Amino acid sequence: MSERTPCFEVQRLVEFYETDMAGIVHFSNFFRYMESAEHAFLRSLEHEPHSRVDGLETGWPRVNATCDYRRPVRFGDTLTIRIFIEEVRNRSVRYGFEFHHDGEIVATGSIAAAHVSITTGGIQAVPVPEALRQKLLAFTNA
Amino acid sequence: MSERTPCFEVQRLVEFYETDMAGIVHFSNFFRYMESAEHAFLRSLEHEPHSRVDGLETGWPRVNATCDYRRPVRFGDTLTIRIFIEEVRNRSVRYGFEFHHDGEIVATGSIAAAHVSITTGGIQAVPVPEALRQKLLAFTNA
Amino acid sequence: MSERTPCFEVQRLVEFYETDMAGIVHFSNFFRYMESAEHAFLRSLEHEPHSRVDGLETGWPRVNATCDYRRPVRFGDTLTIRIFIEEVRNRSVRYGFEFHHDGEIVATGSIAAAHVSITTGGIQAVPVPEALRQKLLAFTNA
Amino acid sequence: MSERTPCFEVQRLVEFYETDMAGIVHFSNFFRYMESAEHAFLRSLEHEPHSRVDGLETGWPRVNATCDYRRPVRFGDTLTIRIFIEEVRNRSVRYGFEFHHDGEIVATGSIAAAHVSITTGGIQAVPVPEALRQKLLAFTNA
Repeated sequence: MSERTPCFEVQRLVEFYETDMAGIVHFSNFFRYMESAEHAFLRSLEHEPHSRVDGLETGWPRVNATCDYRRPVRFGDTLTIRIFIEEVRNRSVRYGFEFHHDGEIVATGSIAAAHVSITTGGIQAVPVPEALRQKLLAFTNA
Repeated sequence: MSERTPCFEVQRLVEFYETDMAGIVHFSNFFRYMESAEHAFLRSLEHEPHSRVDGLETGWPRVNATCDYRRPVRFGDTLTIRIFIEEVRNRSVRYGFEFHHDGEIVATGSIAAAHVSITTGGIQAVPVPEALRQKLLAFTNA
Repeated sequence: MSERTPCFEVQRLVEFYETDMAGIVHFSNFFRYMESAEHAFLRSLEHEPHSRVDGLETGWPRVNATCDYRRPVRFGDTLTIRIFIEEVRNRSVRYGFEFHHDGEIVATGSIAAAHVSITTGGIQAVPVPEALRQKLLAFTNA
Repeated sequence: MSERTPCFEVQRLVEFYETDMAGIVHFSNFFRYMESAEHAFLRSLEHEPHSRVDGLETGWPRVNATCDYRRPVRFGDTLTIRIFIEEVRNRSVRYGFEFHHDGEIVATGSIAAAHVSITTGGIQAVPVPEALRQKLLAFTNA
């Protein structure tokens, strides 16, 4: 098992519509699992992942996403997803992920997300809110 | 085969990620196929399905959707999707759909869509643009 | 609110990847929500929704699916999904669904599913297992 | 633009259901686009991507997938997807991908896929068929 200390952990039940004709979870869904886990983590820090406040819309579009698949995952499996903070930059964050099932790591992945404001004029990178940034940085020292 | 005259027809190749572990297309995807066909049809009438012009955003959220499944559809199958105009109302349209494969109807469905404006204040039904309405009505007399 | 007595109820958090550019849940996802709720219900009755036992594969492909949309649902909303047994036949079951949010019904739907065996030769309707059938029938008398 | 010579190229229209509430294509869908392009490429080489012949089922589960996102892609955009053969091994292949729109690269990615046989006993890596392997190798010398 992993020796790193995760900053957050969620459980996730694999749905029938997430499988493909090979009988396993379609690989693209692991990226959706990562995002859902990231959102649950951000909410646990009292940060709304995609917000519209006073006409200001902010979000976290992805700059990079990657996943390594070690073992097939099947309908009805309950995955434990662990999140790690790999890097906190001024306008972006990189998360690491481990997917565990039956005592084994079945996949690992990472997502780099930019913090942006979304306007009718376009999407522009803006600083990670300071309160969130401090919370995220605390996990990198763990 | 159908005796009705469709107002539009598109081809669609079934993708691997649209199948499930039963080895067939997951039933939810037929609703996505219907919407894609509807959008291709609307574009053929020179109407943009979801537009943002001068800060005015309009779209077609669904009021009702239904599908009857007759035969399984599989990865690599090419479906022929036929659209029928079932009803044109002041602020909504109902489309009928037939999915054909290998000379047989494999599924039928329908979608009722409301024409709306989308603002930060909410979603509100607005009249179907008159030019589009006339084009759609012409098909109901076919 | 509904006056019918549901046979089962689940909570579901709306995910970011389930929204579309109109800012609401894409309508096709309600069919996935229905299926997930149905699977949770079947498991509560100790019936595995899609099983492979001793080389015998059985499942529940859909014969019909329908949904009525009353109000938009958004990222982060927690839906309460209620299931009703509408009809139990020899080889199929029809479920009804209500989606509740903030004290209102935001959508209703239904799914008719056939019980089948899946072999390399094809998909064939087979009787609903008697133990399950009795449990389902008990809910129709409720 | 890219200076490498792609071995294959497909066009792809972005669908409404592939967008999210940020108004852009959800990042997970680029992995589905890659797979569809890979499948079209394999068919152009007369290789069926996922086949069941004489009870023998073979497929290409992913070992790794990665994507870098440079610019947002929107509903109605037509993407040009270019495929490159990055590595051909005994039991796996690594593909590179470029996504082009309006004369710019909007994303790049890669997928490593293992060639496997799928039985009720499990999934096992098997050699890439020799005829296919020779065709793929020819592109690496291009």
